[in-house]
Amino acid sequence: MDTRQKAIQAKDVSIRLAAVSGQVKNRALEEVARALETRSGEIASANREDMEKAEREHLSAPLLKRLRFDKEKTAEAVEGLRSLMALADPVGRTLSATELDDGLELFKVSCPIGVVGIVFESRPDALVQISSLCLKSGNAVLLKGGREAAATNRMLSEVIHEASAAAGIPRGWMHLLEARSDVAEMLALDGIVDLIIPRGSNAFVRYIMDHTNIPVMGHADGMCHVYVDSKADTDMAVRVVVDSKTQYVAVCNAVETVLVHRDIAPAVLPGLKEALEAKGVEIRGCEKTREIIQVKEAAELDWSTEYLDLIVSVRVVESLDEAVEHINRYGSRHTDAIVTADRQRGLRFLDLVDSADVFCNCSTRFSDGFRFGLGAEVGISTSKIHARGPVGLEGLVIYKWRLLGNGHVVADYSGEGARAFTHRPLNKVYG
Amino acid sequence: MDTRQKAIQAKDVSIRLAAVSGQVKNRALEEVARALETRSGEIASANREDMEKAEREHLSAPLLKRLRFDKEKTAEAVEGLRSLMALADPVGRTLSATELDDGLELFKVSCPIGVVGIVFESRPDALVQISSLCLKSGNAVLLKGGREAAATNRMLSEVIHEASAAAGIPRGWMHLLEARSDVAEMLALDGIVDLIIPRGSNAFVRYIMDHTNIPVMGHADGMCHVYVDSKADTDMAVRVVVDSKTQYVAVCNAVETVLVHRDIAPAVLPGLKEALEAKGVEIRGCEKTREIIQVKEAAELDWSTEYLDLIVSVRVVESLDEAVEHINRYGSRHTDAIVTADRQRGLRFLDLVDSADVFCNCSTRFSDGFRFGLGAEVGISTSKIHARGPVGLEGLVIYKWRLLGNGHVVADYSGEGARAFTHRPLNKVYG
Repeated sequence: MDTRQKAIQAKDVSIRLAAVSGQVKNRALEEVARALETRSGEIASANREDMEKAEREHLSAPLLKRLRFDKEKTAEAVEGLRSLMALADPVGRTLSATELDDGLELFKVSCPIGVVGIVFESRPDALVQISSLCLKSGNAVLLKGGREAAATNRMLSEVIHEASAAAGIPRGWMHLLEARSDVAEMLALDGIVDLIIPRGSNAFVRYIMDHTNIPVMGHADGMCHVYVDSKADTDMAVRVVVDSKTQYVAVCNAVETVLVHRDIAPAVLPGLKEALEAKGVEIRGCEKTREIIQVKEAAELDWSTEYLDLIVSVRVVESLDEAVEHINRYGSRHTDAIVTADRQRGLRFLDLVDSADVFCNCSTRFSDGFRFGLGAEVGISTSKIHARGPVGLEGLVIYKWRLLGNGHVVADYSGEGARAFTHRPLNKVYG
Repeated sequence: MDTRQKAIQAKDVSIRLAAVSGQVKNRALEEVARALETRSGEIASANREDMEKAEREHLSAPLLKRLRFDKEKTAEAVEGLRSLMALADPVGRTLSATELDDGLELFKVSCPIGVVGIVFESRPDALVQISSLCLKSGNAVLLKGGREAAATNRMLSEVIHEASAAAGIPRGWMHLLEARSDVAEMLALDGIVDLIIPRGSNAFVRYIMDHTNIPVMGHADGMCHVYVDSKADTDMAVRVVVDSKTQYVAVCNAVETVLVHRDIAPAVLPGLKEALEAKGVEIRGCEKTREIIQVKEAAELDWSTEYLDLIVSVRVVESLDEAVEHINRYGSRHTDAIVTADRQRGLRFLDLVDSADVFCNCSTRFSDGFRFGLGAEVGISTSKIHARGPVGLEGLVIYKWRLLGNGHVVADYSGEGARAFTHRPLNKVYG
C-alpha cells in the first residue's frame, strides 16, 4: 500500500475505532504490554540490527543511546502502558447536556479526532508511547520514525498491531510509513489526515509546520525566560534561574534569557554569576549587565537564540512592562517565569505574558505533562488554538453534538405561534 | 497603516485587551449599543450611499436586501449586543486547579486567542456581531467586509471603535481592512494573526482555507443528509425531511441528500414525493428510487452537490451501514440525521457518522448556535480540532497554564531523595 492508501484505510477504520469501548481499548493496551514482554527477544534482536548499522555509520554517542531499545526500555514502555490504562477513557464524556424543548435533548460528547499523523526522530520508544496514546483516545495513526530505527520500528509496530487486533481493535488502525518521501505525501493528505504531531528538533518541526495545510500540534522553539523582578527574593531568584538553566539543558523548557529589573540587578547579578559559573554556564550580558558583572557581550541575535546548551543571555530591564514586552517579542510562547515577592506584580506578569505556560516563583522546568499531573503527554503545543502547553490525552479528542428528538422540526419554532426553546441544562449523561 | 502594521498594532493591543475585566468589556458593549442608536442617522446615510451605488451597479434583489442596514437592522444589532452582555465572561474561567506540591499550585485558566482575522461578505450587520463577539472574548480583530458595503462598514467600525474606547478599551483593538489585496496580505501574517474566520459562500471559504497557514475556523460546504431507517415512522420521516429541505433552503444546514432504507422505501417514498413536490422541491433519484416513484435521474455528481435550492437527491440504501458509508464519503462533516424508532440503531448511527452534528429524529435545521442555546454564534465549524459544529464564545478563547510557587525547583523532584508530586485536585478558582 502507498501512503495515500494507508491513510484511506486508517480513515475507514477510525470510524469503527471511535465506537470501541474503553474496556476493549484497555484490554488491547494490556495485550500490547504482554506482547512487548513475551516478544522482547525479537525486539532486542531487531534493535541490535539497527544499533550495529548505526555504529558502522558512526552515529554520535547520544544518538546511539536514544536508538537503544533493550529490556530496560521495554520495561519502561510496559510501565507507560499500564499507567495509560489507569487513566479515564477520554472518549464518550458528556461535556454538556441541554434540553432544547420537551423531548429534544442536546449532548456535547467527546470523541476521537480521527486520523493522526505522527513524525518522530530516532527514539523507538516514542513509537510505543504515541501509538498507545492514539489507541487509548480512539484515533487511527500513521507513524513515521527515524531511518536509523527502521528494523526496531517495524518490529514494534508489528507487535502492537497484532496484539491490539487480538484484543478486538480493528486491523489497519495503525500504519508505519518508512520512506522519507512518505512524509511529504502524508503532509499533502488534507481531508484524510486530521492532525499532524511532529516530535523532534526545532528545524524538523518548523519544516513540518511550513509544509502542510493540516493542523499541526507541537512546538518548534522553546525560547523561555525568567524575569527577576525588583521585588524578588535574591536567593530564590538564583535558585530558580539555576534550576531553569541547568537541571536539564537540552530541552525546550530550559531558560535561555534571564531578564533582571535594574533596581535589583546590583544585588542579584554577582550571586547569579557565581552560581551559574559553578555549573559551567557561560553568561552573555547586555551593556548594563556588564557594568555590574564581568561577562561576555550579548548580541541582538542572542535574544532569540535557543542555546539548548550551557549558555544563558542576561538583560537588565527598566520595568516589569519592559520585561513583558521583551518576552512577547523574542519568546516562543512556550514557558516564561517571574520571580517576585509581590503577588500583584506576579499576577500582572502572568496576565500579560502571551505564553502557554506562565509561572510565578518556580522553575520553567515544571512545564511538562507528567509534572502537571496530566498522566500521559502527547507533547507541548505553542499554537493558540485547540490545546496549549503540555497536552494530555484531551488534546487527541474533540467532540460531536448529538441531538435526540422525537420528530422535532424547526418550522414549529418560527413564525406566528412559534414554540420557544427551553434551553434547560440537563444533569444527565449521554447514552 | 498597511495591513501588516494594523496587525502588529492589534497584536500589541491584544495583550492589554486580554487583561481587561468582564465588567469593562460589558460597559463597552453597552456604549457601543448606545452609540449605534444615537448615531443611527449617520449610519443609515452611509448605508444609503452603498445602496444607491449597488442599485446603479444592478446588484440582485437578495444582495440588496443583505446590504441594507436601516433602523430595523440597527435595533436588531443593539438587541444582539444586549444579549451578548448577558452572557458570562468567557475569559478568566478556571478550567482546572491542581496542587503539584505544597505551595505549588497549577491553574488552567481560559484566555483570549489573540488576534482574529474575519473576512465576511456583503452583510454589514456581520461587522457589528463579529466585532462585539471579539470584544466580549478579549480578542483584537482585523475585519474585511464586502466592497459593496464599504461606506456602511467604515461608519460602523468608527462608531464601535470610538464607543469602546470611551468605555476604556485600548484603541487599536479593531481594524478595518478595505482593499481586496489586504486579505491576501492578512492571510500571510502567520505568527501575528492567530485565527481566521471566513463567513460567506462555499467558494469564498474554500479559497481562504487554501490560501493560508493560519488556522481557519468555519465551513466550506454543508452537504447534509437525512437517513430514513427501516424502523422509521413514515409520517415522522416525511415531516423531518420536508423541514430539513424547505424550512430555509439557502443555508448550510439544509438537507441535500435523503437516504432511504430499501425495506421502507416503498412505504415512504410516495408520501415523501407528494410532500416535497407540494413545496416545489425537485427530486433526483437513484435507479431504485425511480422504480418506486417517478422522478428525475440522479447522477454521481448529485451525491456531492450542495444545491442550496429547492432540489434534493434521493438514494435507496441496503442497510444502515451503507447509509453511514455514503455520508462519511460524500458528506461534509456538518450535520446528518437519522429517522428511526429503534433507539439502538439511532445511537449506532450517531456513533458512526463522522460529522460535527449528528441528530436522531429531528430536522438538520436545528444545527445552529442560537437553537443550541449557545447565546451567540461565532459560526459553524467543520474542522476536527479546537471547536466543532455551532461555535459560541468558547471558540474564541483558549487557555494558559498559570503555576504559582514559592521558589520551587525541579531538581528537588529528581534523583535520590526526590520529592513526590501530590497532584491533588484543588477546589479553588484562580486569582
